[in-house]
Amino acid sequence: MFETVTVIGAGRAGSAIAARLVERGIDVRPGGDLRLLCVPDGAIGGAARAIEPGPWVAHVSGATPLAELDPHVNRFSVHPLQTLVRSRGPEQLDGAWAALTAETSEAAARAAWLAETLGLRGFVLADDRRALYHAGAAIASNYLVTLYRAASQLLDDAGAPPQALVPLMRRTLDNDFELTGPIARGDWDTVERHLDAVRAHEPALEPLYTALAEATRR
Amino acid sequence: MFETVTVIGAGRAGSAIAARLVERGIDVRPGGDLRLLCVPDGAIGGAARAIEPGPWVAHVSGATPLAELDPHVNRFSVHPLQTLVRSRGPEQLDGAWAALTAETSEAAARAAWLAETLGLRGFVLADDRRALYHAGAAIASNYLVTLYRAASQLLDDAGAPPQALVPLMRRTLDNDFELTGPIARGDWDTVERHLDAVRAHEPALEPLYTALAEATRR
Repeated sequence: MFETVTVIGAGRAGSAIAARLVERGIDVRPGGDLRLLCVPDGAIGGAARAIEPGPWVAHVSGATPLAELDPHVNRFSVHPLQTLVRSRGPEQLDGAWAALTAETSEAAARAAWLAETLGLRGFVLADDRRALYHAGAAIASNYLVTLYRAASQLLDDAGAPPQALVPLMRRTLDNDFELTGPIARGDWDTVERHLDAVRAHEPALEPLYTALAEATRR
Repeated sequence: MFETVTVIGAGRAGSAIAARLVERGIDVRPGGDLRLLCVPDGAIGGAARAIEPGPWVAHVSGATPLAELDPHVNRFSVHPLQTLVRSRGPEQLDGAWAALTAETSEAAARAAWLAETLGLRGFVLADDRRALYHAGAAIASNYLVTLYRAASQLLDDAGAPPQALVPLMRRTLDNDFELTGPIARGDWDTVERHLDAVRAHEPALEPLYTALAEATRR
Protein backbone atom coordinates (compact mmCIF):
# COMPACT_ATOMS: atom_id res chain seq x y z
CA MET A 1 0.00 0.00 0.00
CA PHE A 2 2.98 2.22 0.73
CA GLU A 3 6.20 1.32 -1.05
CA THR A 4 8.25 4.07 0.53
CA VAL A 5 8.01 5.22 4.14
CA THR A 6 9.91 7.96 5.94
CA VAL A 7 10.29 7.29 9.66
CA ILE A 8 10.79 10.57 11.49
CA GLY A 9 12.35 10.08 14.94
CA ALA A 10 14.87 7.42 16.00
CA GLY A 11 13.76 6.86 19.60
CA ARG A 12 12.55 3.55 21.03
CA ALA A 13 9.46 3.44 18.80
CA GLY A 14 11.05 4.87 15.64
CA SER A 15 14.03 2.48 15.77
CA ALA A 16 11.92 -0.67 16.21
CA ILE A 17 9.37 0.44 13.58
CA ALA A 18 11.98 1.39 10.96
CA ALA A 19 13.81 -1.92 11.47
CA ARG A 20 10.56 -3.90 11.09
CA LEU A 21 9.60 -2.02 7.89
CA VAL A 22 13.01 -2.80 6.40
CA GLU A 23 12.55 -6.48 7.41
CA ARG A 24 9.24 -6.45 5.53
CA GLY A 25 10.86 -5.13 2.35
CA ILE A 26 9.55 -1.58 2.60
CA ASP A 27 11.84 1.12 1.24
CA VAL A 28 12.54 3.31 4.27
CA ARG A 29 13.99 6.59 3.04
CA PRO A 30 13.52 10.38 2.95
CA GLY A 31 10.64 11.71 0.85
CA GLY A 32 8.44 8.60 1.30
CA ASP A 33 4.76 8.25 0.39
CA LEU A 34 4.06 7.91 4.12
CA ARG A 35 5.68 10.17 6.68
CA LEU A 36 5.52 8.34 9.97
CA LEU A 37 6.05 10.61 12.97
CA CYS A 38 7.77 8.72 15.81
CA VAL A 39 8.60 11.82 17.85
CA PRO A 40 7.57 12.78 21.42
CA ASP A 41 3.91 13.80 21.74
CA GLY A 42 4.75 17.47 22.20
CA ALA A 43 6.79 17.52 18.97
CA ILE A 44 4.13 15.98 16.70
CA GLY A 45 2.38 19.26 15.80
CA GLY A 46 5.61 20.98 14.78
CA ALA A 47 6.91 17.98 12.88
CA ALA A 48 3.62 17.70 10.96
CA ARG A 49 3.60 21.37 10.03
CA ALA A 50 7.15 21.04 8.72
CA ILE A 51 5.99 18.52 6.08
CA GLU A 52 4.94 19.94 2.73
CA PRO A 53 1.31 18.78 2.05
CA GLY A 54 1.03 15.85 -0.35
CA PRO A 55 2.16 12.56 1.24
CA TRP A 56 0.23 10.63 3.87
CA VAL A 57 1.17 11.59 7.42
CA ALA A 58 0.70 9.39 10.49
CA HIS A 59 1.79 9.27 14.11
CA VAL A 60 2.36 6.41 16.56
CA SER A 61 1.38 8.26 19.75
CA GLY A 62 -1.15 6.84 22.18
CA ALA A 63 -2.79 9.96 23.56
CA THR A 64 -2.42 12.48 20.71
CA PRO A 65 -5.50 13.37 18.62
CA LEU A 66 -5.29 13.36 14.83
CA ALA A 67 -5.81 17.14 14.78
CA GLU A 68 -2.17 17.45 15.80
CA LEU A 69 -1.36 16.33 12.26
CA ASP A 70 -2.94 19.49 10.79
CA PRO A 71 -2.84 20.76 8.09
CA HIS A 72 -2.63 17.27 6.58
CA VAL A 73 -5.92 15.56 5.72
CA ASN A 74 -4.51 12.25 4.48
CA ARG A 75 -3.65 11.08 7.96
CA PHE A 76 -4.07 8.33 10.56
CA SER A 77 -2.50 6.89 13.67
CA VAL A 78 -1.19 3.46 14.65
CA HIS A 79 -0.22 3.16 18.31
CA PRO A 80 1.65 -0.05 19.20
CA LEU A 81 0.33 -1.07 22.64
CA GLN A 82 3.69 -2.26 23.84
CA THR A 83 6.58 -1.07 26.02
CA LEU A 84 9.54 -0.65 23.66
CA VAL A 85 13.14 -0.65 24.88
CA ARG A 86 16.41 0.08 23.12
CA SER A 87 17.93 -3.26 24.05
CA ARG A 88 15.43 -5.11 21.84
CA GLY A 89 14.80 -4.93 18.13
CA PRO A 90 11.71 -5.13 15.89
CA GLU A 91 10.75 -8.55 17.32
CA GLN A 92 9.36 -6.70 20.33
CA LEU A 93 6.39 -5.68 18.16
CA ASP A 94 5.36 -9.33 17.71
CA GLY A 95 2.21 -10.30 19.57
CA ALA A 96 1.36 -6.73 20.55
CA TRP A 97 -1.91 -5.04 19.77
CA ALA A 98 -2.24 -1.61 18.17
CA ALA A 99 -4.82 1.16 18.30
CA LEU A 100 -5.84 2.36 14.84
CA THR A 101 -7.45 5.77 14.41
CA ALA A 102 -8.60 7.17 11.10
CA GLU A 103 -11.25 9.56 9.77
CA THR A 104 -11.98 7.96 6.37
CA SER A 105 -12.20 4.39 5.12
CA GLU A 106 -9.20 5.07 2.90
CA ALA A 107 -7.17 6.15 5.93
CA ALA A 108 -8.47 3.20 7.97
CA ALA A 109 -7.27 0.77 5.28
CA ARG A 110 -3.84 2.37 5.38
CA ALA A 111 -3.69 2.19 9.19
CA ALA A 112 -4.65 -1.50 9.02
CA TRP A 113 -1.94 -2.10 6.41
CA LEU A 114 0.69 -0.45 8.59
CA ALA A 115 -0.32 -2.44 11.69
CA GLU A 116 -0.23 -5.70 9.75
CA THR A 117 3.10 -4.85 8.15
CA LEU A 118 4.56 -4.10 11.58
CA GLY A 119 3.25 -7.41 12.97
CA LEU A 120 0.64 -5.80 15.22
CA ARG A 121 -2.97 -6.87 15.87
CA GLY A 122 -5.02 -3.78 15.18
CA PHE A 123 -8.22 -2.57 16.81
CA VAL A 124 -10.17 0.58 16.02
CA LEU A 125 -9.94 3.45 18.52
CA ALA A 126 -12.10 6.61 18.27
CA ASP A 127 -10.06 9.80 18.10
CA ASP A 128 -11.82 11.36 21.11
CA ARG A 129 -11.09 8.28 23.27
CA ARG A 130 -7.31 8.32 22.77
CA ALA A 131 -6.43 9.96 26.11
CA LEU A 132 -8.72 7.59 28.01
CA TYR A 133 -7.25 4.58 26.24
CA HIS A 134 -3.70 5.76 26.83
CA ALA A 135 -4.38 6.39 30.53
CA GLY A 136 -5.33 2.70 30.70
CA ALA A 137 -2.14 1.72 28.89
CA ALA A 138 -0.04 3.81 31.27
CA ILE A 139 -1.70 2.21 34.29
CA ALA A 140 -1.07 -1.28 32.90
CA SER A 141 2.59 -0.76 32.02
CA ASN A 142 4.18 2.33 33.59
CA TYR A 143 2.35 1.98 36.88
CA LEU A 144 3.09 -1.71 36.94
CA VAL A 145 6.73 -0.61 37.20
CA THR A 146 5.74 1.66 40.08
CA LEU A 147 3.90 -1.20 41.76
CA TYR A 148 6.97 -3.43 41.53
CA ARG A 149 9.24 -0.69 42.84
CA ALA A 150 6.96 0.03 45.81
CA ALA A 151 6.63 -3.67 46.65
CA SER A 152 10.39 -4.16 46.26
CA GLN A 153 11.06 -1.30 48.63
CA LEU A 154 8.90 -2.91 51.30
CA LEU A 155 10.54 -6.30 50.85
CA ASP A 156 13.96 -4.69 50.97
CA ASP A 157 13.01 -2.86 54.19
CA ALA A 158 11.85 -6.21 55.58
CA GLY A 159 15.18 -7.85 54.69
CA ALA A 160 13.55 -10.06 52.05
CA PRO A 161 14.83 -10.43 48.44
CA PRO A 162 12.76 -8.24 46.04
CA GLN A 163 13.36 -10.67 43.14
CA ALA A 164 11.18 -13.14 45.07
CA LEU A 165 8.24 -11.01 43.85
CA VAL A 166 8.81 -11.86 40.20
CA PRO A 167 7.38 -15.43 40.17
CA LEU A 168 4.43 -14.08 42.18
CA MET A 169 3.68 -11.31 39.70
CA ARG A 170 4.17 -13.58 36.70
CA ARG A 171 1.74 -16.13 38.14
CA THR A 172 -0.82 -13.40 38.84
CA LEU A 173 -0.84 -12.73 35.08
CA ASP A 174 -0.84 -16.45 34.23
CA ASN A 175 -3.85 -16.92 36.53
CA ASP A 176 -5.81 -14.34 34.49
CA PHE A 177 -5.65 -11.87 37.38
CA GLU A 178 -7.66 -14.00 39.83
CA LEU A 179 -7.67 -12.13 43.13
CA THR A 180 -6.29 -13.95 46.18
CA GLY A 181 -4.88 -12.64 49.47
CA PRO A 182 -6.39 -10.74 52.40
CA ILE A 183 -8.90 -8.56 50.50
CA ALA A 184 -10.23 -11.58 48.58
CA ARG A 185 -10.74 -13.25 51.98
CA GLY A 186 -12.35 -10.13 53.48
CA ASP A 187 -9.51 -10.05 56.01
CA TRP A 188 -9.44 -6.35 56.91
CA ASP A 189 -7.32 -6.89 60.04
CA THR A 190 -4.43 -7.95 57.83
CA VAL A 191 -4.94 -4.93 55.58
CA GLU A 192 -4.81 -2.72 58.70
CA ARG A 193 -1.61 -4.48 59.76
CA HIS A 194 -0.14 -3.72 56.33
CA LEU A 195 -1.09 -0.07 56.63
CA ASP A 196 0.50 0.23 60.10
CA ALA A 197 3.72 -1.30 58.75
CA VAL A 198 3.78 0.95 55.67
CA ARG A 199 3.15 4.02 57.84
CA ALA A 200 6.00 3.04 60.19
CA HIS A 201 8.60 2.15 57.54
CA GLU A 202 7.69 3.87 54.26
CA PRO A 203 5.23 6.68 55.05
CA ALA A 204 5.65 8.07 51.53
CA LEU A 205 3.95 4.94 50.18
CA GLU A 206 0.87 5.26 52.40
CA PRO A 207 -1.29 7.20 49.89
CA LEU A 208 -0.47 4.62 47.22
CA TYR A 209 -1.26 1.67 49.48
CA THR A 210 -4.53 3.29 50.59
CA ALA A 211 -5.64 4.14 47.03
CA LEU A 212 -4.89 0.58 45.89
CA ALA A 213 -6.67 -1.02 48.86
CA GLU A 214 -9.69 1.24 48.31
CA ALA A 215 -9.88 0.45 44.60
CA THR A 216 -9.51 -3.29 45.33
CA ARG A 217 -12.26 -3.17 47.96
CA ARG A 218 -14.62 -1.73 45.35
CA MET B 1 12.77 -34.40 59.35
CA PHE B 2 9.04 -34.83 59.85
CA GLU B 3 7.62 -38.16 58.80
CA THR B 4 4.03 -37.31 59.64
CA VAL B 5 2.38 -33.96 59.04
CA THR B 6 -1.15 -32.83 59.83
CA VAL B 7 -2.39 -30.12 57.45
CA ILE B 8 -5.13 -28.12 59.18
CA GLY B 9 -7.28 -26.22 56.68
CA ALA B 10 -8.23 -27.22 53.13
CA GLY B 11 -8.33 -23.82 51.46
CA ARG B 12 -6.16 -22.79 48.52
CA ALA B 13 -2.91 -23.05 50.48
CA GLY B 14 -3.79 -26.14 52.52
CA SER B 15 -4.92 -28.12 49.47
CA ALA B 16 -1.80 -27.40 47.42
CA ILE B 17 0.53 -27.99 50.39
CA ALA B 18 -1.09 -31.28 51.45
CA ALA B 19 -0.98 -32.56 47.85
CA ARG B 20 2.71 -31.63 47.54
CA LEU B 21 3.60 -33.33 50.84
CA VAL B 22 1.89 -36.51 49.66
CA GLU B 23 3.80 -36.29 46.35
CA ARG B 24 7.02 -36.13 48.38
CA GLY B 25 6.17 -39.28 50.34
CA ILE B 26 5.25 -37.57 53.60
CA ASP B 27 2.54 -39.27 55.64
CA VAL B 28 -0.20 -36.63 55.84
CA ARG B 29 -2.60 -37.66 58.57
CA PRO B 30 -4.19 -36.62 61.89
CA GLY B 31 -1.90 -36.55 64.94
CA GLY B 32 1.27 -35.76 62.94
CA ASP B 33 4.65 -34.67 64.36
CA LEU B 34 4.08 -31.32 62.66
CA ARG B 35 0.73 -29.54 62.81
CA LEU B 36 0.66 -27.15 59.85
CA LEU B 37 -1.98 -24.44 60.19
CA CYS B 38 -3.30 -23.42 56.76
CA VAL B 39 -6.29 -21.47 58.11
CA PRO B 40 -7.24 -17.78 57.68
CA ASP B 41 -5.01 -15.37 59.65
CA GLY B 42 -7.74 -14.61 62.18
CA ALA B 43 -8.22 -18.31 62.95
CA ILE B 44 -4.56 -19.15 63.62
CA GLY B 45 -4.58 -18.25 67.34
CA GLY B 46 -7.64 -20.36 68.09
CA ALA B 47 -6.44 -23.30 66.00
CA ALA B 48 -3.05 -23.23 67.77
CA ARG B 49 -4.62 -23.13 71.24
CA ALA B 50 -6.77 -26.14 70.31
CA ILE B 51 -3.64 -28.27 69.83
CA GLU B 52 -2.39 -30.18 72.88
CA PRO B 53 1.27 -29.12 73.48
CA GLY B 54 3.85 -31.61 72.24
CA PRO B 55 4.13 -31.64 68.43
CA TRP B 56 5.73 -28.90 66.34
CA VAL B 57 3.25 -26.25 65.21
CA ALA B 58 3.71 -23.98 62.17
CA HIS B 59 1.66 -21.61 60.06
CA VAL B 60 1.85 -20.54 56.42
CA SER B 61 0.53 -16.99 56.86
CA GLY B 62 2.40 -13.98 55.49
CA ALA B 63 1.58 -11.29 58.01
CA THR B 64 0.97 -13.26 61.23
CA PRO B 65 3.63 -13.18 63.99
CA LEU B 66 4.80 -16.41 65.60
CA ALA B 67 3.25 -15.31 68.91
CA GLU B 68 -0.12 -16.30 67.44
CA LEU B 69 1.10 -19.89 67.81
CA ASP B 70 1.19 -19.54 71.64
CA PRO B 71 1.39 -21.53 73.86
CA HIS B 72 3.56 -23.69 71.60
CA VAL B 73 7.31 -23.05 71.70
CA ASN B 74 8.36 -25.57 69.05
CA ARG B 75 7.10 -23.42 66.23
CA PHE B 76 7.96 -21.70 62.95
CA SER B 77 6.38 -20.28 59.81
CA VAL B 78 6.83 -20.94 56.09
CA HIS B 79 4.93 -18.49 53.86
CA PRO B 80 4.84 -19.45 50.17
CA LEU B 81 5.21 -16.18 48.26
CA GLN B 82 2.77 -17.19 45.57
CA THR B 83 -0.83 -16.64 44.56
CA LEU B 84 -2.55 -20.02 44.92
CA VAL B 85 -5.77 -20.88 43.13
CA ARG B 86 -8.09 -23.86 43.36
CA SER B 87 -7.87 -24.66 39.66
CA ARG B 88 -4.19 -25.58 40.00
CA GLY B 89 -2.48 -28.29 42.01
CA PRO B 90 0.79 -28.58 43.95
CA GLU B 91 2.82 -27.66 40.83
CA GLN B 92 1.91 -24.05 41.49
CA LEU B 93 4.44 -24.06 44.35
CA ASP B 94 7.30 -24.73 41.91
CA GLY B 95 9.62 -21.79 41.38
CA ALA B 96 8.08 -19.72 44.17
CA TRP B 97 10.03 -18.28 47.07
CA ALA B 98 9.04 -18.66 50.72
CA ALA B 99 9.58 -16.55 53.84
CA LEU B 100 10.96 -18.62 56.72
CA THR B 101 10.57 -17.36 60.28
CA ALA B 102 11.91 -19.18 63.34
CA GLU B 103 13.18 -18.33 66.80
CA THR B 104 15.77 -21.11 67.29
CA SER B 105 18.23 -22.84 64.97
CA GLU B 106 16.31 -26.07 65.47
CA ALA B 107 13.10 -24.39 64.31
CA ALA B 108 14.95 -22.70 61.42
CA ALA B 109 16.21 -26.08 60.20
CA ARG B 110 12.66 -27.42 60.27
CA ALA B 111 11.33 -24.41 58.37
CA ALA B 112 14.06 -24.89 55.75
CA TRP B 113 13.16 -28.58 55.48
CA LEU B 114 9.50 -27.80 54.93
CA ALA B 115 10.25 -25.16 52.27
CA GLU B 116 12.55 -27.54 50.42
CA THR B 117 10.06 -30.40 50.67
CA LEU B 118 7.35 -28.17 49.23
CA GLY B 119 9.61 -27.10 46.34
CA LEU B 120 10.02 -23.52 47.58
CA ARG B 121 13.16 -21.36 47.67
CA GLY B 122 13.41 -20.16 51.26
CA PHE B 123 14.70 -16.86 52.62
CA VAL B 124 14.84 -15.79 56.25
CA LEU B 125 12.30 -13.20 57.42
CA ALA B 126 12.43 -11.56 60.87
CA ASP B 127 9.22 -12.03 62.86
CA ASP B 128 8.75 -8.28 63.42
CA ARG B 129 9.00 -7.59 59.67
CA ARG B 130 6.22 -9.94 58.59
CA ALA B 131 3.51 -7.28 58.14
CA LEU B 132 5.89 -5.06 56.14
CA TYR B 133 6.92 -7.98 53.94
CA HIS B 134 3.33 -9.06 53.40
CA ALA B 135 2.25 -5.53 52.49
CA GLY B 136 4.85 -5.73 49.72
CA ALA B 137 3.51 -9.11 48.61
CA ALA B 138 -0.06 -7.77 48.52
CA ILE B 139 1.03 -4.78 46.43
CA ALA B 140 2.84 -7.04 43.97
CA SER B 141 0.02 -9.54 43.51
CA ASN B 142 -3.38 -8.40 44.79
CA TYR B 143 -2.94 -4.81 43.68
CA LEU B 144 -1.60 -5.97 40.34
CA VAL B 145 -5.11 -7.41 39.87
CA THR B 146 -6.52 -4.00 40.79
CA LEU B 147 -4.19 -2.31 38.32
CA TYR B 148 -5.32 -4.61 35.54
CA ARG B 149 -8.99 -4.10 36.40
CA ALA B 150 -8.61 -0.31 36.46
CA ALA B 151 -6.72 -0.27 33.16
CA SER B 152 -9.27 -2.68 31.62
CA GLN B 153 -12.10 -0.42 32.68
CA LEU B 154 -10.52 2.55 30.91
CA LEU B 155 -9.87 0.54 27.74
CA ASP B 156 -13.40 -0.77 27.83
CA ASP B 157 -14.75 2.78 28.22
CA ALA B 158 -12.59 3.77 25.25
CA GLY B 159 -14.01 0.93 23.14
CA ALA B 160 -10.67 -0.91 23.06
CA PRO B 161 -10.22 -4.62 23.93
CA PRO B 162 -8.92 -5.01 27.52
CA GLN B 163 -7.11 -8.26 26.61
CA ALA B 164 -4.78 -6.11 24.50
CA LEU B 165 -3.19 -5.08 27.81
CA VAL B 166 -1.91 -8.58 28.55
CA PRO B 167 1.08 -8.68 26.13
CA LEU B 168 1.98 -5.19 27.36
CA MET B 169 1.99 -6.22 31.02
CA ARG B 170 3.83 -9.45 30.31
CA ARG B 171 6.57 -7.60 28.41
CA THR B 172 6.88 -5.05 31.24
CA LEU B 173 7.86 -7.99 33.49
CA ASP B 174 10.11 -9.52 30.80
CA ASN B 175 11.88 -6.16 30.43
CA ASP B 176 12.77 -6.21 34.15
CA PHE B 177 10.35 -3.36 34.84
CA GLU B 178 12.17 -0.82 32.68
CA LEU B 179 10.05 2.34 32.76
CA THR B 180 8.87 3.73 29.40
CA GLY B 181 5.96 6.01 28.50
CA PRO B 182 5.11 9.62 29.29
CA ILE B 183 6.59 9.87 32.81
CA ALA B 184 9.88 8.29 31.65
CA ARG B 185 9.95 10.98 28.94
CA GLY B 186 9.06 13.75 31.40
CA ASP B 187 5.92 14.38 29.35
CA TRP B 188 3.61 15.91 31.96
CA ASP B 189 1.16 17.28 29.37
CA THR B 190 0.22 13.71 28.48
CA VAL B 191 -0.16 12.82 32.17
CA GLU B 192 -2.51 15.81 32.52
CA ARG B 193 -4.46 14.62 29.49
CA HIS B 194 -4.81 11.21 31.13
CA LEU B 195 -6.07 12.77 34.33
CA ASP B 196 -8.66 14.87 32.48
CA ALA B 197 -9.91 11.74 30.70
CA VAL B 198 -10.05 9.68 33.91
CA ARG B 199 -11.92 12.49 35.68
CA ALA B 200 -14.45 12.72 32.84
CA HIS B 201 -15.09 8.98 32.37
CA GLU B 202 -14.12 7.14 35.57
CA PRO B 203 -13.95 9.72 38.39
CA ALA B 204 -13.79 6.91 40.97
CA LEU B 205 -10.35 5.98 39.58
CA GLU B 206 -8.89 9.48 39.92
CA PRO B 207 -7.34 8.98 43.40
CA LEU B 208 -5.69 5.77 42.20
CA TYR B 209 -4.33 7.37 39.03
CA THR B 210 -3.02 10.34 40.99
CA ALA B 211 -1.35 8.20 43.68
CA LEU B 212 0.31 6.05 41.00
CA ALA B 213 1.49 9.05 38.98
CA GLU B 214 2.88 10.70 42.14
CA ALA B 215 4.73 7.56 43.21
CA THR B 216 6.12 7.11 39.68
CA ARG B 217 7.29 10.72 39.54
CA ARG B 218 9.32 10.14 42.72
